Amino acid sequence: MDAGSLIRKKRDGGRLSEKEIRSMIRGYVDGSVPDYQMAAFLMAVFFTGMTPEETGFLTSSMIASGESITIRDPGGPLIDKHSTGGVGDKVSLVLAPLAAACGVRVPMMSGRSLGHTGGTLDKLESIPGYSTNLDADRFAECVRRVGYAMIGQSRSVVPADRKLYALRDVTATVESVPLIVSSIISKKCAEGADGFVFDVKTGSGAFMKEESRARELAVGLCSAAEALGKKAAAVITSMDDPLGRCVGNFLEVRESVRCLRDEGPEDLKEVVVRLTAWMIVLAETSPSLEQAESICLQRLADGSAYERFIENVRFQGGDTAVVESTEKGPRAAIVRTVESGRSGWVRAVDAYTVGMAATHLGAGRLSKDDAVLPAVGVEVLKRRGDRVDKGEPICVVHAEDGERYERAEALVREAYALSEEPAEAAGSLIREEICVGRNRS
Amino acid sequence: MDAGSLIRKKRDGGRLSEKEIRSMIRGYVDGSVPDYQMAAFLMAVFFTGMTPEETGFLTSSMIASGESITIRDPGGPLIDKHSTGGVGDKVSLVLAPLAAACGVRVPMMSGRSLGHTGGTLDKLESIPGYSTNLDADRFAECVRRVGYAMIGQSRSVVPADRKLYALRDVTATVESVPLIVSSIISKKCAEGADGFVFDVKTGSGAFMKEESRARELAVGLCSAAEALGKKAAAVITSMDDPLGRCVGNFLEVRESVRCLRDEGPEDLKEVVVRLTAWMIVLAETSPSLEQAESICLQRLADGSAYERFIENVRFQGGDTAVVESTEKGPRAAIVRTVESGRSGWVRAVDAYTVGMAATHLGAGRLSKDDAVLPAVGVEVLKRRGDRVDKGEPICVVHAEDGERYERAEALVREAYALSEEPAEAAGSLIREEICVGRNRS
Repeated sequence: MDAGSLIRKKRDGGRLSEKEIRSMIRGYVDGSVPDYQMAAFLMAVFFTGMTPEETGFLTSSMIASGESITIRDPGGPLIDKHSTGGVGDKVSLVLAPLAAACGVRVPMMSGRSLGHTGGTLDKLESIPGYSTNLDADRFAECVRRVGYAMIGQSRSVVPADRKLYALRDVTATVESVPLIVSSIISKKCAEGADGFVFDVKTGSGAFMKEESRARELAVGLCSAAEALGKKAAAVITSMDDPLGRCVGNFLEVRESVRCLRDEGPEDLKEVVVRLTAWMIVLAETSPSLEQAESICLQRLADGSAYERFIENVRFQGGDTAVVESTEKGPRAAIVRTVESGRSGWVRAVDAYTVGMAATHLGAGRLSKDDAVLPAVGVEVLKRRGDRVDKGEPICVVHAEDGERYERAEALVREAYALSEEPAEAAGSLIREEICVGRNRS
Repeated sequence: MDAGSLIRKKRDGGRLSEKEIRSMIRGYVDGSVPDYQMAAFLMAVFFTGMTPEETGFLTSSMIASGESITIRDPGGPLIDKHSTGGVGDKVSLVLAPLAAACGVRVPMMSGRSLGHTGGTLDKLESIPGYSTNLDADRFAECVRRVGYAMIGQSRSVVPADRKLYALRDVTATVESVPLIVSSIISKKCAEGADGFVFDVKTGSGAFMKEESRARELAVGLCSAAEALGKKAAAVITSMDDPLGRCVGNFLEVRESVRCLRDEGPEDLKEVVVRLTAWMIVLAETSPSLEQAESICLQRLADGSAYERFIENVRFQGGDTAVVESTEKGPRAAIVRTVESGRSGWVRAVDAYTVGMAATHLGAGRLSKDDAVLPAVGVEVLKRRGDRVDKGEPICVVHAEDGERYERAEALVREAYALSEEPAEAAGSLIREEICVGRNRS
């Protein structure tokens, strides 16, 4: 099978067979299909798309390129969550212990920050000592004992995705639904879960700015998961404003701890509880979303979710003292409030711009080799719908030096849109819920 | 300027500036833009196209990547012809000496066979001693003294095209009008001509099977040439049947010699005369196509075109004795007629299939490193519209061994479609003539 003719077939809108897709991926991993042929193939896929069947073949070929983790005797149904990424998206930090406290087992492989969004691994590693580098045995043990574990993608899991993702990143082929779906699902399947809940973000701070594209991706993710014998559901959530009030690694840990102690914020709690309820439904430990939600609220209120979090931090080598008293955690050199230049009502706090402010402060990465700083970030004081008077603090910027502070302050000011008329608060962030095939509730 | 964002811009249908296109091509030639980014860019161009302006920027950036030839005191207007390639397309061999005999100066850079079509260089090199490897000075001298010269593309001319073409060939991005146009025009401009006539072939034996695509290409070629200050016209000609009766390197030299001695065949003569007449019109040595055609017919009849051919063969080192008595030329080990299996009228002799038969015999290349054989090929005895009786010879296959003979015979039989009803002969091959802007006649 020659790669040139497979590229041509896809370019001309043809449907590729399982054998053809497998030979393309296998060839790419073993080096017989060079980067330039794969780049042309990816661009052809960008334009002509893939059927759900082809996306399934692509995903299983990618899984076959590496090792898969098997967690023996996990002590409960293995369900994971994946988010397409947003600003202030600390959901995993609260959801995983909450789901564990509800009887679900969560084997979670997460990513690092890139561009304007943060990464779960970077947030966890802002807890002194916390390691996201567990081997397969320790990972399984952590899931069994604590109920959940948080690690990064190891080199041996889906090597095809590592190679493909690096190529997509430099060839403008990231934003293609079948390519996104196969990348996400292949990694999720390889980590050994039986079902997945997808948090597909939409809005200014999301990769999918438009809701129609988010829906397309949500359906693609659920279909591909189901084609591989997994249970799946997707929740489309708003990402116009930062989620919660904190953006930045340890700032988000602090906010997650508050949420686990049932001290809000409400928007984060809403999203966490809904996604966890879906995990419980997929795990079949509760028959309805409503019942599952009430279990979640109980586990937040009774402290059992918080206990799981502390246990996990201990297991993964983190300093629990810093988590129990977050004021002992890392603190930036400059912590300064930004005051409003005029009076009015907050019409919008643009998530993308706040995300870029945090990235420029060092909370995230503009390129893969950047190091991230634990303590920097932005605390949003005034949110959509709030009244602001001239001179009143609108947010707090945590920076390690004056130059970066200035840049972040300018961006944060840019993120705020004030209006002379009263503006409405954000309201519920849950836009849509999707469940395909036999998982339909 | 980063290549990733230029790929994205083109992918999303944006128009690239001259600076952007130049940085992409310059970067590709100097290695800072890697093959995989260029491959993705080419596929994006395949899908979203380019405006005539962008195609012009691409072409001039490609020309700027290498050296251009300047022919001082050529002794007449420098006009060249380019064919998109066909089966039995020996037009250049007859047209160049004919145009020279009519006062036009022809600095011709040609290509080699690839796939089912032959290459002018391979045909010329089937004349023992003939060299297509003249340096710039000898090339200019040959144009001045003989009126025309035939060479291959040197490494220093449009290096961007060499690199791009090799990449397009393996990434299914050959069939894109702006990419074809820039490849052709950049090379033609670099060889120093002032105007070009394009023979755009359409039909089974052509790259552009459909006439609408051929027209699109013809318009693209003329527009890009004009944008670079050159005169241009295009003739769309049929390539459903092989042109003339001979397909194969020296077989085509033999047929060209006959045509130069004004012994036909009619279809070849029609195309040669029309294209040469266009060259004369672009050269402004004749006010009308009709007058130019009658000059051509005269130069064929009076032997002056043939004389130019002999002079050129002598200048370029070829054995003129073999040309003057073609029976002294290379001869294949097996020369055998193929007889018809049934009676009827010839409805079609599929050019593509005959071309593949010749290629399999060794007249052409399936891959770039194949060597070509001078004597092999196919002589078509029965053509469209001819009556054939069972057992009557339909063609002659010239092969170097029995195995290749068998394969070619099977293909040649496949190429013939007979019908029980009388079928019409091919008729005129000139389908359409295109001339843009100030060149309109």
